[in-house]
Amino acid sequence: MSKGNNTMSLKALTLWCIWLCLLQVSLGAVRHYKFDVEYMLHGPDCHEHVVMGINGHFPGPTIRAQVGDTLDIALTNKLSTEGTVIHWHGIRQYGTPWADGTAAISQCAITAGETFHYRFVVDRPGTYLYHGHYGMQRAAGLYGSLIVDLAKGEKEPFHYDGEFNLLLSDWWHKSTHVQEVGLSSIPFKWINEPQSLLINGRGQYNCSMAANLMNTTLPQCKFRGNEECAPQILHVDPNKTYRIRIASTTSLASLNFAIGNHKLVVVEADGNYVEPFSVDDIDIYSGDSYSVLLTTNQDPKKNYWVSIGVRGRKPNTPQGLTILNYKTISASAFPTSPPPVTPRWDDYDRSKAFTKKIFALKGTEQPPLHYDRRLVLLNTQNLVNGYTKWAINNVSLTLPSTPYLGSIKFGLNGAFDAKSPPDNFSADYDILNPPSNPNSNIGSGVYMFRYNQVVDVILQNANVLSGTHSEIHPWHLHGHDFWVLGYGEGKFKVGDERKFNLKNPPLRNTAVIFPYGWTALRFKADNPGVWAFHCHIEPHLHMGMGVIFAEAVHKVNSIPRDALACGVLKKMFINKKHN
Amino acid sequence: MSKGNNTMSLKALTLWCIWLCLLQVSLGAVRHYKFDVEYMLHGPDCHEHVVMGINGHFPGPTIRAQVGDTLDIALTNKLSTEGTVIHWHGIRQYGTPWADGTAAISQCAITAGETFHYRFVVDRPGTYLYHGHYGMQRAAGLYGSLIVDLAKGEKEPFHYDGEFNLLLSDWWHKSTHVQEVGLSSIPFKWINEPQSLLINGRGQYNCSMAANLMNTTLPQCKFRGNEECAPQILHVDPNKTYRIRIASTTSLASLNFAIGNHKLVVVEADGNYVEPFSVDDIDIYSGDSYSVLLTTNQDPKKNYWVSIGVRGRKPNTPQGLTILNYKTISASAFPTSPPPVTPRWDDYDRSKAFTKKIFALKGTEQPPLHYDRRLVLLNTQNLVNGYTKWAINNVSLTLPSTPYLGSIKFGLNGAFDAKSPPDNFSADYDILNPPSNPNSNIGSGVYMFRYNQVVDVILQNANVLSGTHSEIHPWHLHGHDFWVLGYGEGKFKVGDERKFNLKNPPLRNTAVIFPYGWTALRFKADNPGVWAFHCHIEPHLHMGMGVIFAEAVHKVNSIPRDALACGVLKKMFINKKHN
Repeated sequence: MSKGNNTMSLKALTLWCIWLCLLQVSLGAVRHYKFDVEYMLHGPDCHEHVVMGINGHFPGPTIRAQVGDTLDIALTNKLSTEGTVIHWHGIRQYGTPWADGTAAISQCAITAGETFHYRFVVDRPGTYLYHGHYGMQRAAGLYGSLIVDLAKGEKEPFHYDGEFNLLLSDWWHKSTHVQEVGLSSIPFKWINEPQSLLINGRGQYNCSMAANLMNTTLPQCKFRGNEECAPQILHVDPNKTYRIRIASTTSLASLNFAIGNHKLVVVEADGNYVEPFSVDDIDIYSGDSYSVLLTTNQDPKKNYWVSIGVRGRKPNTPQGLTILNYKTISASAFPTSPPPVTPRWDDYDRSKAFTKKIFALKGTEQPPLHYDRRLVLLNTQNLVNGYTKWAINNVSLTLPSTPYLGSIKFGLNGAFDAKSPPDNFSADYDILNPPSNPNSNIGSGVYMFRYNQVVDVILQNANVLSGTHSEIHPWHLHGHDFWVLGYGEGKFKVGDERKFNLKNPPLRNTAVIFPYGWTALRFKADNPGVWAFHCHIEPHLHMGMGVIFAEAVHKVNSIPRDALACGVLKKMFINKKHN
Repeated sequence: MSKGNNTMSLKALTLWCIWLCLLQVSLGAVRHYKFDVEYMLHGPDCHEHVVMGINGHFPGPTIRAQVGDTLDIALTNKLSTEGTVIHWHGIRQYGTPWADGTAAISQCAITAGETFHYRFVVDRPGTYLYHGHYGMQRAAGLYGSLIVDLAKGEKEPFHYDGEFNLLLSDWWHKSTHVQEVGLSSIPFKWINEPQSLLINGRGQYNCSMAANLMNTTLPQCKFRGNEECAPQILHVDPNKTYRIRIASTTSLASLNFAIGNHKLVVVEADGNYVEPFSVDDIDIYSGDSYSVLLTTNQDPKKNYWVSIGVRGRKPNTPQGLTILNYKTISASAFPTSPPPVTPRWDDYDRSKAFTKKIFALKGTEQPPLHYDRRLVLLNTQNLVNGYTKWAINNVSLTLPSTPYLGSIKFGLNGAFDAKSPPDNFSADYDILNPPSNPNSNIGSGVYMFRYNQVVDVILQNANVLSGTHSEIHPWHLHGHDFWVLGYGEGKFKVGDERKFNLKNPPLRNTAVIFPYGWTALRFKADNPGVWAFHCHIEPHLHMGMGVIFAEAVHKVNSIPRDALACGVLKKMFINKKHN
């Protein structure tokens, strides 16, 4: 310490301490994490497979922070030959768009052996998740939970005595490497339905814990105890209220979640409070998160099934199960009643009824009353040079080798398609039938938004490539929440906006489009950066089902160079010099 | 053209043309190749799997050039998430050590979506191969042939009327991704024996073309024709001489190659001429290449089996087969005699007898009579923190994230272990028994050689970790040929060098160590660069069975920066700036 500092008066020192203290309160703590991403042998559904893990765990460790904290996550790629990134799903990354963790969009993939520091502020309480966003690494098991608590002294708008956290996923026995190649082959090889459903990374293949209670050919599961696939049991006291945080990072499956005999009160969706409503079960799509309150007001001499089952696609996967255990009895006593019956997969009216119950909690920020720009995005399944793809307004997204954030920031020419994709589609497109011309195009163009522009997106569903049906797609927006203004049947038409809910639409980051229907979203382009907006179904994104939004990239500063040093930018940074 | 040039005299123009012409002759042509590396679905042994291919082909395209040509191979990584490199096996890369294609040694892995230009001169005629050198991508199918012809007007020291090229490999149904994880797990999961042996990427699983002629439970193979796994038949005229080029890029298997009823005259080994000798069959280890002459002097009313079978490990894989077809009869007529019997796997005396027949052709450069430095490298199987590894003088090689060529050239501290690994091992080590202390260490240190230093390497084999046996290891040196001075039994001891062959030892780039024996090699450190020297068995290298040689790196110039822009050097090149 210099002589000058030694002479600092007591008063100055006190002021200094108070200032430091205030700084701490206003900025929150910096929480350091070390994430080593690697493949490991693991048996998520009692069958050993290669699984992506973090620090030797699958799913990865739960991150728990307080509003205002800065997370500093040092991600070391311990894979043998693959790059990797992690997306912090639901975190809007204000001021840190380079930390969004989307390969080729917000950053370069972190190459094998290297370490990258994600550093960002968690500015809002809620239930989030994180997952891989490169190739199909999410489906390979690269995911975990991220929970942000209120700042000290703050109170949730609902009461609970305890909480549980459930991360839902689906699992295939065919590796994602093989899945990827099949999706990119002629003839096309679909991944088919998952072998098992996982709750916190645990499921049971080829057996059921409830076999004795159901009409099934599956044998009863037997556990020695301590298996990696044994269910995590929810131990509860009678007559208490529990918050159950539920997030879905499925690759494909839309799920229905229920707890036998118990009502669920929905209070949070995607990190936003909603007007509480009571249901028997919830639909949860890939990318969604919810908090539900469970009151343990049933017979405490029994245990109950917690179940997840497939919705929206003809299921070929048994329910995922765990047990709600009233601590008054043994946890090893299996429930005596069968698990909740998952609603019929194609009962879309029931799904819509659930979705339409979700409204923002009173006091939530309301949407602007008018939009500045409207995109109407037609979702179609197509062929591109014989390859099966998904396209949006006839463009199937292909990612460039230089991240958009860098190429836009540095004004590079030719790093991606200069022409933006269309804002709309042909008025005479028949959404109720297979496309008359199945051929589409590959593209890497970007929708560019002015700073603070209010953008409406109408997601328009349509018939698939052949046959007569239309699939569910959960669309996830990075860098933003959007207001879900409404859902409609058939083709969106003039006048439909009159039915928009501008009063209390829920704020979400993921919203579903139902078969043959449309979904209307609104958001403000107030977050400088480049943001992916895509179907959260892993193989669909792999097949091009997404678009890129860029807003006010000139306002983005302090991007660590190592986030962008690949593709054309690497060549630029290193000056093409010879040594 | 400027006015000045227009006034160039006819004489000057003529001289200019002559100079250009001479330049062309002395420098050779530049041959451009475009290699797109990608995964594809393919059935090498009639069963569909994910295979690494180049430009949609497996194996990759054969490169054919003339001595003095420059190859310019634009390798585009079309993998989804993996990096890649290609090593040009047998090409010494004088002046272009950055083009050797070894990830973390001579260059950074080429990341997905990027293109890297390999540009190097092929300075010597011969039979070579190329293959992946990152993770276990070679075993995944990333390989092909590289053949260098004599310059126009030059003549081989032997006559032949036609030629064939056979690239041998082994194939697993378990993906290399899964193999890799198993090798790096506790408990250790060995890859076991291959499901099939491939000749030019073609084999037959669970059937044999010669089932009717052998004592086997395998059914007879049936082909519709045009299958990816149907054998490539060798069509020959009677009473001609054919050069058969044979190279092995097996992941594990040591092979024996034979053609029913026909003698083989060995004339080339690893791109070097050898004194011709006649044999019934040849042993070929991973990394070896040979040319043999076949004279079609047998009954032209018959066809004959061409066979490869496993040696050196207890085989669990049927022979790989194809057919030598005398064009005098139909190619579809199967041979009526059974395929050549592969010698017993553990008949090492027979293997040694073959190896010891190989001498350099008269006129081949002789080795220096004395060495400047001797390394005695003990090969042991060990445990490192419970993981099963191979170690050399008790160091199991782990590769750093910054390529050695760059970190040495730029004098970086801390990019790899500063301490060189030991030149020798403890004199009292008992090579005939399992290690008394099985524990070893991970290391990334380098053996540094002075420019033009003459280096002797004694490779010392030993007993494996448990049980009583010792395995075969084919060691491959990059950037050099070495003289194989001799083979011996037991532990190398003072006086053994008196038995060295300094008169006509063969020049090779790959040499085997036999169980419990030693092999002595000599080379001159006359090629500035950093060179891997390792067991060519893919899982053994993955388990650390290699060392790094560096020589006169200060003399290396003109390294393209994009070859080195990863790890610490990327950070250095991009100046750690924020944008």
